[in-house]
Amino acid sequence: MTKQLKAGIFDSGAGGLSVVKSLLEANFFDEIIYYGDTARVPYGIKDKNTIIRYSLEALEFFKNFNIDILITACNTVSAYAIEELKKQAPFDVVGVIEPGVLAVTEKIKNKNAHILVTGTNATIKSKKYTKLLQEKGYNNISEKATGLFVSLVEEQIFGGKIMDATMEYYFNNIKKPDALIMGCTHFPLIKNEYQKFFKDTVLIHSGEAIVQYLKENFNLTGKYQKTNIKYFATENPEHLKEIAKQWLFDDSKILQENKCQKF
Amino acid sequence: MTKQLKAGIFDSGAGGLSVVKSLLEANFFDEIIYYGDTARVPYGIKDKNTIIRYSLEALEFFKNFNIDILITACNTVSAYAIEELKKQAPFDVVGVIEPGVLAVTEKIKNKNAHILVTGTNATIKSKKYTKLLQEKGYNNISEKATGLFVSLVEEQIFGGKIMDATMEYYFNNIKKPDALIMGCTHFPLIKNEYQKFFKDTVLIHSGEAIVQYLKENFNLTGKYQKTNIKYFATENPEHLKEIAKQWLFDDSKILQENKCQKF
Repeated sequence: MTKQLKAGIFDSGAGGLSVVKSLLEANFFDEIIYYGDTARVPYGIKDKNTIIRYSLEALEFFKNFNIDILITACNTVSAYAIEELKKQAPFDVVGVIEPGVLAVTEKIKNKNAHILVTGTNATIKSKKYTKLLQEKGYNNISEKATGLFVSLVEEQIFGGKIMDATMEYYFNNIKKPDALIMGCTHFPLIKNEYQKFFKDTVLIHSGEAIVQYLKENFNLTGKYQKTNIKYFATENPEHLKEIAKQWLFDDSKILQENKCQKF
Repeated sequence: MTKQLKAGIFDSGAGGLSVVKSLLEANFFDEIIYYGDTARVPYGIKDKNTIIRYSLEALEFFKNFNIDILITACNTVSAYAIEELKKQAPFDVVGVIEPGVLAVTEKIKNKNAHILVTGTNATIKSKKYTKLLQEKGYNNISEKATGLFVSLVEEQIFGGKIMDATMEYYFNNIKKPDALIMGCTHFPLIKNEYQKFFKDTVLIHSGEAIVQYLKENFNLTGKYQKTNIKYFATENPEHLKEIAKQWLFDDSKILQENKCQKF
């Protein structure tokens, strides 16, 4: 990779900002190009073929920038399109599923431990986490599609009665896990609710996991004091900016937002 | 209109099947062409410009069929794109908002009655229902974006604790309405829940309203014993078929499903 490190972050919408947050804290990059497919969000309810098609369109977008690495913040994209992206990209491509599994191996040494994977319908249907966890020797894995959490976070509902009822609805019949993968960019925003329901369970966060993964696999170190970010969205970049302000960081880091090609 | 009546139904996804159900019961049409933009659903969280753009792409699709009338089952499309569609279409175009307002005028004679409009974020933001209701003389109108109901119905959650908590969340501070507009194709599926929360409130259903509207404005009569339906979806028409079976009618009426052009 070049000296001035430039990363592309691809997400179905605004959720990938939770990964950006971790990357900003790590100071790995001089510049970040964020692309959210806000006009077609969410991906988690879509087909494999559609997800791959949209991801390859995003790849074409990133080819216009001189990026060193593309990070697919979206778990659904990471589940279905990562091989195709790696095959076709002229730069490194990293998803969030491998890092998530790496984080499990670092935190959970007992291969009989109960690992619960949560994600969108599409991510869970792909069985990608389970497959990789099994390759690492884990043999007690549960999966649960918890797509409603995406809608709750989008509606700015981070707790309260609806959240409690939804937690119960999804998890009442599930044995308490030793580790739980928050396999969707939206889920870290309700981390406290997960922890409230599953006390003492180790929570795995894609954003934190990817920082560790980049350190170990690309020898990245946090040398930049400030990361410049450029935002692109297939619709309403102003709304993306609004969410970025609310969720993540101060206004000063938001340098520019642009519409990109239309889909 | 010609003797063999052919209607196009445009919806953002599968929700428009609730309108199809009413049309089937009315037996107005010899044939229905259903187009669901399942690859880009939901529309209710999108921008005005995006909604118009997607709607005009749908119009191009319908131009390939010899339809007599296009019905936009989606409230969000009806709120933002109906004028543009009417301007550009070589056939009649009818949305669901005008019919919904007509249904209010027929059921609620007192202009001081409290009318509550519910819909997606985009539909409510358009203020289209309110504007038309005001033109009809109503002066006590409330609006509430209730987008989470869409997600609940999509997750097949039609009642229970989450639904109760969501009803409370949205409506606890709202004075009981005399009439409530279920301004989204998904909402009639939770009609009973609406009625449980607002007893004695008159519920306005887009599907039923459009039947009445077509009778009055196009002199349609239910002369067909069987309506043939062809399904088209921008992704996964099989899933559309599955939902159609579950929600609406027997398998025998589903004649054909096809993918249409890709977006």
